[in-house]
Amino acid sequence: MGEQAANEVRLIIASGEASPDLYYRTRFLTPDPYIYIEIRSEKIIFVNDLEIDRAKKESTADRVLPTRDWENKLSSSGKTVSSVNIVSAFLEEEKIKNILVPFDFPLGYADGLRKNGFNITASTGPFFPERAFKSTEEAKMIRSVQIGVEEALGEIVRILKESTIREGFIHYGGRVLTSEAVKSILKKEMIGKNLLGEHTIVAGGEQACDPHMEGEGPLPAHLPIVFDIFPHHESTRYFADMTRTLFKGPVKNVHRELYEAVLEAQKKAISLAKPEEESRKLHQAVVDTFLALGYQTGEKNGRMEGFFHGTGHGVGLEIHEAPRVGKTGELLKPGHVITVEPGLYYPGIGGVRIEDMLYITDTGFENLTTFPKDWGTVAIP
Amino acid sequence: MGEQAANEVRLIIASGEASPDLYYRTRFLTPDPYIYIEIRSEKIIFVNDLEIDRAKKESTADRVLPTRDWENKLSSSGKTVSSVNIVSAFLEEEKIKNILVPFDFPLGYADGLRKNGFNITASTGPFFPERAFKSTEEAKMIRSVQIGVEEALGEIVRILKESTIREGFIHYGGRVLTSEAVKSILKKEMIGKNLLGEHTIVAGGEQACDPHMEGEGPLPAHLPIVFDIFPHHESTRYFADMTRTLFKGPVKNVHRELYEAVLEAQKKAISLAKPEEESRKLHQAVVDTFLALGYQTGEKNGRMEGFFHGTGHGVGLEIHEAPRVGKTGELLKPGHVITVEPGLYYPGIGGVRIEDMLYITDTGFENLTTFPKDWGTVAIP
Repeated sequence: MGEQAANEVRLIIASGEASPDLYYRTRFLTPDPYIYIEIRSEKIIFVNDLEIDRAKKESTADRVLPTRDWENKLSSSGKTVSSVNIVSAFLEEEKIKNILVPFDFPLGYADGLRKNGFNITASTGPFFPERAFKSTEEAKMIRSVQIGVEEALGEIVRILKESTIREGFIHYGGRVLTSEAVKSILKKEMIGKNLLGEHTIVAGGEQACDPHMEGEGPLPAHLPIVFDIFPHHESTRYFADMTRTLFKGPVKNVHRELYEAVLEAQKKAISLAKPEEESRKLHQAVVDTFLALGYQTGEKNGRMEGFFHGTGHGVGLEIHEAPRVGKTGELLKPGHVITVEPGLYYPGIGGVRIEDMLYITDTGFENLTTFPKDWGTVAIP
Repeated sequence: MGEQAANEVRLIIASGEASPDLYYRTRFLTPDPYIYIEIRSEKIIFVNDLEIDRAKKESTADRVLPTRDWENKLSSSGKTVSSVNIVSAFLEEEKIKNILVPFDFPLGYADGLRKNGFNITASTGPFFPERAFKSTEEAKMIRSVQIGVEEALGEIVRILKESTIREGFIHYGGRVLTSEAVKSILKKEMIGKNLLGEHTIVAGGEQACDPHMEGEGPLPAHLPIVFDIFPHHESTRYFADMTRTLFKGPVKNVHRELYEAVLEAQKKAISLAKPEEESRKLHQAVVDTFLALGYQTGEKNGRMEGFFHGTGHGVGLEIHEAPRVGKTGELLKPGHVITVEPGLYYPGIGGVRIEDMLYITDTGFENLTTFPKDWGTVAIP
């Protein structure tokens, strides 16, 4: 339980959707915030009339209390009805003074509770550090999302194979193929499996030089096109995250070499993944590989070029969660799900990124990504 | 500027996605949190290398500062690199001590800034109250989402018309039609227009008695089926919200009467919508109509039945935002976009809800929902 002292309780006030910590503990989603109190390992939630049937059915809470009862108690004693006062009334009955809340606990609630005499401490690190260690069940849910991602990108590879090139742009079904059209196909493929692919990236040519540019307009032939796909499942809430860089038509040496460099760096980093390894060593391997191959990183004409992001991040109920895989890494442990996603970006040339998702096991890792990344697959004639 | 005093600044640290307030001011989305400071009406954001090109292009901030410069300043003076210390360093240079933050500002940051000597006040109400008053441009974005919602539901009406009934369940294309299949069709229709219809509700029979149940399994004929569709646009971030209750095949009087009661209550509430009217009067009209028609509300066998939710809510960058339309209402003003969505739910009988979205104008309102709700449309033979 990490920071929890014997007489301390944990408190969250949030919607299950806005708080992955809350969802982790209750598996219960609501559009509006609800109160969660964890006291002596018992998980208690306070739910309004509208949600109470569903809460009893769906949530993993040990006790589901109707907010209305506590609102009535407050009203009958002449107190203002508010979440802060419900929590206060409940914890006064329990004789609790010290409350641990997540780092991102709303300040408005915290100041209200402090005014009511409680000691509120914001967690400095993850509220439930155990969230970083995925059970095999959780890894399966992530892999299941990943399967949907791979099927969707498989459909795009099929389309690119059937596409033609006219005046430097990719054409399909008689018209130019755009980032928008491809993203729409990916998202439709995924939504059929309840995967929400918000902010899917399909960025070619110059656009691929900005790692977070989602991409728009006609897709160029002969140049790298970055596909970064990271949906979550609408019910399980777990994410997956994969990037592939594809090419359509003959490719110049400079682009093939860029691709091979990123692939080499990625493979070196992946080869280091194992329990008790520092994740920053994976990042360092990427940095070293690029330097050895002569790919420089730095600012040029006011823009960053080269490799200027972290090598990866944890994936779970959030797209970015613990552990980090970058300059300031952490010790990898069994259960971690991390991405390894080096990239190189040179305005005037193009951008390449390749990303797999690894599940750290007791002895090494399982690569949750099975979509091929060899040159023969990604360079589509 | 509401609560802002002359020497006070506003601060947000969040991702554009997690904070509609931040997005409202910057129109800039990132996966990770960034710093926003509003000082003497100037909007300043601090962005990392990965986002800076896009920030300069896309955001409406007046100044885009590279986080890296401030990280270097902190490092060279031996200080810990953190968001709290970047904000502190910047505001010390500006000789600012008082900071206003949103109600939901992360406590962890607030306590850090307080330790550094700043006075942090959490906003008690909306951080940017002007968000509730939509410009015609914003209303157009909401209406544009609503058009997508209506086209998607139109597709379902077409399917229901072509459907048959076997053993009390709806069949289409040779098999039983399920909530899951219908939700999937709705979401695919919408994603083609960049609308994310997460948590779309398609709930028939007993499931419709729980207003937030998303629905599963075969859809019943002859019984009310609630369709509650509230997607947001992936780029504009605006929501729309509509509910219709549809029937397939011949319907018993008890169900038709339930439908007509909800429709009558909704029309009465809508007829009251105008600027300077108390929104709670719309809610009261719904309550009164149901009582007059003999529809009771209360707990029965441990479950709520009747009408036990608010009549509506504001819609914008959040699905639920100001103003409220319920027991504790607010004064309606030009620019408000509100839903009017009474419902009746009786386990053993069924649930009905009807929801339109109104844009309050200088003289009355514009109904942003144009999907029909007359009996002839919703009762599909």
